[in-house]
Amino acid sequence: MGEFELIRCYFAATACAQAAPGVVLGIGDDCALLEVPAGERLAISTDTMVAGVHFPAPCDPFLLGQRALATAASDLAAMGATPLGFTLALTLPAADPAWLAAFARGLDHKARECGLALIGGDTTRGPLCISLSVFGRVPAGLALCRNGARPGDLLCVGGPLGDAAGALELVLGRHQAPAEVASPLLARYWSPRPQLSLGVALRGKASAALDISDGLLADCGHIASASEVALCIERHRVPLSVPLRRLLGEEAALACALGGGDDYLLAFTLPPRFFAALQAEWPLRVIGRVEAGTGVRLLDEAGREIEPPTGGYQHFGSPRD
Amino acid sequence: MGEFELIRCYFAATACAQAAPGVVLGIGDDCALLEVPAGERLAISTDTMVAGVHFPAPCDPFLLGQRALATAASDLAAMGATPLGFTLALTLPAADPAWLAAFARGLDHKARECGLALIGGDTTRGPLCISLSVFGRVPAGLALCRNGARPGDLLCVGGPLGDAAGALELVLGRHQAPAEVASPLLARYWSPRPQLSLGVALRGKASAALDISDGLLADCGHIASASEVALCIERHRVPLSVPLRRLLGEEAALACALGGGDDYLLAFTLPPRFFAALQAEWPLRVIGRVEAGTGVRLLDEAGREIEPPTGGYQHFGSPRD
Repeated sequence: MGEFELIRCYFAATACAQAAPGVVLGIGDDCALLEVPAGERLAISTDTMVAGVHFPAPCDPFLLGQRALATAASDLAAMGATPLGFTLALTLPAADPAWLAAFARGLDHKARECGLALIGGDTTRGPLCISLSVFGRVPAGLALCRNGARPGDLLCVGGPLGDAAGALELVLGRHQAPAEVASPLLARYWSPRPQLSLGVALRGKASAALDISDGLLADCGHIASASEVALCIERHRVPLSVPLRRLLGEEAALACALGGGDDYLLAFTLPPRFFAALQAEWPLRVIGRVEAGTGVRLLDEAGREIEPPTGGYQHFGSPRD
Repeated sequence: MGEFELIRCYFAATACAQAAPGVVLGIGDDCALLEVPAGERLAISTDTMVAGVHFPAPCDPFLLGQRALATAASDLAAMGATPLGFTLALTLPAADPAWLAAFARGLDHKARECGLALIGGDTTRGPLCISLSVFGRVPAGLALCRNGARPGDLLCVGGPLGDAAGALELVLGRHQAPAEVASPLLARYWSPRPQLSLGVALRGKASAALDISDGLLADCGHIASASEVALCIERHRVPLSVPLRRLLGEEAALACALGGGDDYLLAFTLPPRFFAALQAEWPLRVIGRVEAGTGVRLLDEAGREIEPPTGGYQHFGSPRD
């Protein structure tokens, strides 16, 4: 058994432990086989992370494993899909047992949290690169797409934004902070929690949705463009966490929330009649509204359009870059 | 629109041109959506190719695009699956328009040949690396797995073996040959033709199957191990092409066929009653039989077990390495 054959054993154990309904055949044959129930569709997304581009290298392999799977699984949340499984294409410069064991543990931890079984993949030698494909199922006609936003809908997000971009300041050593500030921010960067249950709850209600990976303004631009509407964001309604405000101050925190990526929280548009029932269960925040027109407009407290703040708070791109 | 956003346009055109039945939603949202008919299963495989590891770099990007998709699609053939679509995770050091246009053309050419629609993916910056996930459908219970070979079955292959390993000698400049020898071999290396129709024809007939990527002996070992049987290969029945014999001579050609990878032809085991009808339609060759026992045995004309020839005819690993 070759060195790279052995590597697969680390992940094979994870795969067996997570054999899930819907997975007819997992690792070990030419293909994996999935069962998709009648009346449902299979949702598929692929994300690649390259060392030094999408994450700092070197970094903790346990945290990297967690983060790689979380960012990929977030696309299932954005589609309102129920997780089924994932494949891992892992390219490594060498087979370092300690690194691999920690990476596999991080991946396994997040896979269990998300309900994703490892069903296949490929391990190759080369510069460190992680490409994940995730699979989920969603009832026909109920997938959350980007093109359904209509004037009059509310613009909502699934929680406080900018924490991951703030955390990157700590990861890169550009800021220091006491543990009570740093810890919650770093957790948001290294272990994002894909809003899978919220995505399912939004089926048949949200008119458009995505997960925020490129930054709020850029991602709202994607909805505006696909739906052929304008999205208006009210600056003072953008939720900011206490740790982020303490780390950077109000203005820079807002810049992170608007322009920083990696939040992996949902942004979605919602006909107002659905809001009250959803808000009772989920930490939703209304940050604006959909209007006729094009593009994204940022408004101040008086409703005047303003320029977005510029903040150089991003060094590593999101996996969508 | 950023540089890497523009890149996606090359492939988006390909995707639209190939919108296929079963693809409910293609490129452009958080996930693609596939429809799997009732009573069918979705087959999934992921293959990664790294520059300098799985193919020589630099190389012709048109040929690389063809080869990358063909090697991935071959896993669908090995499973007896009907092609649906694929995702492309492409990591590139820079966005070179001429390289990208040629790579996209090669990919498109092979995608049309195989009937695969591009349904999603990711384009990132980094050392050249191509990771493809392919999706197909296969009726429940009819997928060709590796674990069903039984003593008494015939061991068959889908055509002459070793051509790709022979071609690599030309690619790497270790041999020269006139065009009538070189051209057919190079075509087998750069543009393998996944045996998709043969795979479908073997549903309900072959007891075990895979595509030869690691070399005949190694891949037969996978069937033997999964099925808990012995596979006996009769040396003189292993089919070798005329160009390969002309390039390397009989002995070295056989070494390529037994140990070289990259053939992407099917190897399978078959109850004898199915052979005649299949052979009437397909270029099958019986190369041995399944017996009780374990492992792979190579036999000479007199039925005596012999040592496999050793040949250093492989420099780049297959995408399965």
